[in-house]
Amino acid sequence: MKVSTFTLKDAVFETAPDQADEIYTANLVDERHDASVTIGYGRYGPNSELTETMLVDYIMVVIEGATGTVGVGGIVHMPKGRRVTIRAFDEGATTAYVTYPHWREAR
Amino acid sequence: MKVSTFTLKDAVFETAPDQADEIYTANLVDERHDASVTIGYGRYGPNSELTETMLVDYIMVVIEGATGTVGVGGIVHMPKGRRVTIRAFDEGATTAYVTYPHWREAR
Repeated sequence: MKVSTFTLKDAVFETAPDQADEIYTANLVDERHDASVTIGYGRYGPNSELTETMLVDYIMVVIEGATGTVGVGGIVHMPKGRRVTIRAFDEGATTAYVTYPHWREAR
Repeated sequence: MKVSTFTLKDAVFETAPDQADEIYTANLVDERHDASVTIGYGRYGPNSELTETMLVDYIMVVIEGATGTVGVGGIVHMPKGRRVTIRAFDEGATTAYVTYPHWREAR
């Protein structure tokens, strides 16, 4: 694998599975590549909310807006097996995420 | 492990090993915890430069300033085994990072 650099312009957002609200994922690196982790961008619409039991270790960095108690630069670590709720507010939120192992394969 | 939320206020920066320039790391989650990955914040002083052969998969999200070609929200994936150079400019840079496996144990 080579060194890869990504910006939001590289994101192709898809509807997140099993979510009623406007929540989107855009994998950049995942099981299709020879990588140990999945890397991507997430987007949370205004006042959206996601509740899920984590099937992988999930690390989220807020890069626009805010989720829960953290704004830009905040990190949330959601360990495998935990039930979590992610909430966005009026402005929504954009995140960068890393999962170990690959979240799509864990479903 | 429980869900953990971090902001820059939680960072305790230490000088990065083997670097001449003003480059700092602040692990938040690592081999001391029951985690699969290391999570932390990095800080790159004005015009600092780091060149290193990666001992782990290293994912960096820019949260302040810019490194190389990416500004806030940019992601750099540095796979294990690759030789990489990270450059900051006049304003320096702050990053959030995730490594798999733990970078301190890999040294």
